Amino acid sequence: MSQNEYPGVFITFEGIEGVGKTTNLRFLAEHYHQQDIPILITREPGGTPLADEIRHFLLSEHEESIEPETELLLMFAARAQHISRVILPALAAGKAVFCDRFTDTSFAYQGAARGLGAEKIAVLQTLVQKGLTPDLTILLDAPVELALDRLQERAKTDRFESETSAFFQRARDAYLEMAIAEPERFRVIDATTSLEDVRQKMLSAINPLLEKIVA
Amino acid sequence: MSQNEYPGVFITFEGIEGVGKTTNLRFLAEHYHQQDIPILITREPGGTPLADEIRHFLLSEHEESIEPETELLLMFAARAQHISRVILPALAAGKAVFCDRFTDTSFAYQGAARGLGAEKIAVLQTLVQKGLTPDLTILLDAPVELALDRLQERAKTDRFESETSAFFQRARDAYLEMAIAEPERFRVIDATTSLEDVRQKMLSAINPLLEKIVA
Repeated sequence: MSQNEYPGVFITFEGIEGVGKTTNLRFLAEHYHQQDIPILITREPGGTPLADEIRHFLLSEHEESIEPETELLLMFAARAQHISRVILPALAAGKAVFCDRFTDTSFAYQGAARGLGAEKIAVLQTLVQKGLTPDLTILLDAPVELALDRLQERAKTDRFESETSAFFQRARDAYLEMAIAEPERFRVIDATTSLEDVRQKMLSAINPLLEKIVA
Repeated sequence: MSQNEYPGVFITFEGIEGVGKTTNLRFLAEHYHQQDIPILITREPGGTPLADEIRHFLLSEHEESIEPETELLLMFAARAQHISRVILPALAAGKAVFCDRFTDTSFAYQGAARGLGAEKIAVLQTLVQKGLTPDLTILLDAPVELALDRLQERAKTDRFESETSAFFQRARDAYLEMAIAEPERFRVIDATTSLEDVRQKMLSAINPLLEKIVA
């Protein structure tokens, strides 16, 4: 298990749209809040008012289509702001930061699904993160068809959610490849089982890390 | 003189605020328009409706201050959009592209004046420009005090124009160092002389390059 240099714990939640990241994060927030564990729940793109403006820009439909590299740079602009203003101060203050999407999203979506390749993302990762990596990344995994079925139940979809199933297939494959390449950091959880089961698996992956901050 | 690989000609105009870039570019546009030379005048940050939205975001005051790296990445996000949608198509169509600010601005403002260093900008330059460099860069140069005096005559200043004179001094020094390092590409013009003189010098630097597109 990698450990960051801060007193806090940095855990990221990844997966394609529709696998239940947001719902399960809400459950975790409630769960740990009841135990008085200092958790900060945040999300990308966004996480600060200014980064949220960039998020809004990224997720909206525009008359002029956003070039893949523009999208990538906007993602990292929001991330730079989020890291400096929110993530690092919280980690320095000994909190557990639970982040809904982080750089693995850029590898899966911009790198693989949009076809920009991993190298450009790695360059930006080095530039912006200066060595910060998640202590744990929970990858919620489900077949694309099932995830997309869940998405269709939503009233409104954004610029990413309206992508094709081939796009999400490339993203899912990239996620699974990253998890294989970094087994120490990733915990892959099958999101097709019961909510209860998914949550138990998340808790058992996260709890040991939190000992660092409750000790 | 470096030559880009396209049928067109790419000329950038650089210098700190108040040296007269915009006014002189308006003169050049009129001058070459009368000669039926296909000129595209554009500017950074911005140059497309979407990149102009990023420009607006960059130049506005926000309650939350923009981190230096966020600013840098937003600049390059706008630049990626501008290059793909405007600059490359115009160069491919055999036009002369006159661009008010380009990557040298990032080196001078974000790299030197904000202190991010040249290396990060060079990394993004490689990522976004893929070998595109200006055929000629005209640097309008003036002492900071004189340039700032001119700025004060403007009714409203933006987030950059309201920077300190030490900020602009670092930017000016960086511009002059770049001009010394790349004498083939840069033409430094003293912006403190008469408008007539400045314009004659601009024309004599630009005219030889335009033979490529009027021939």
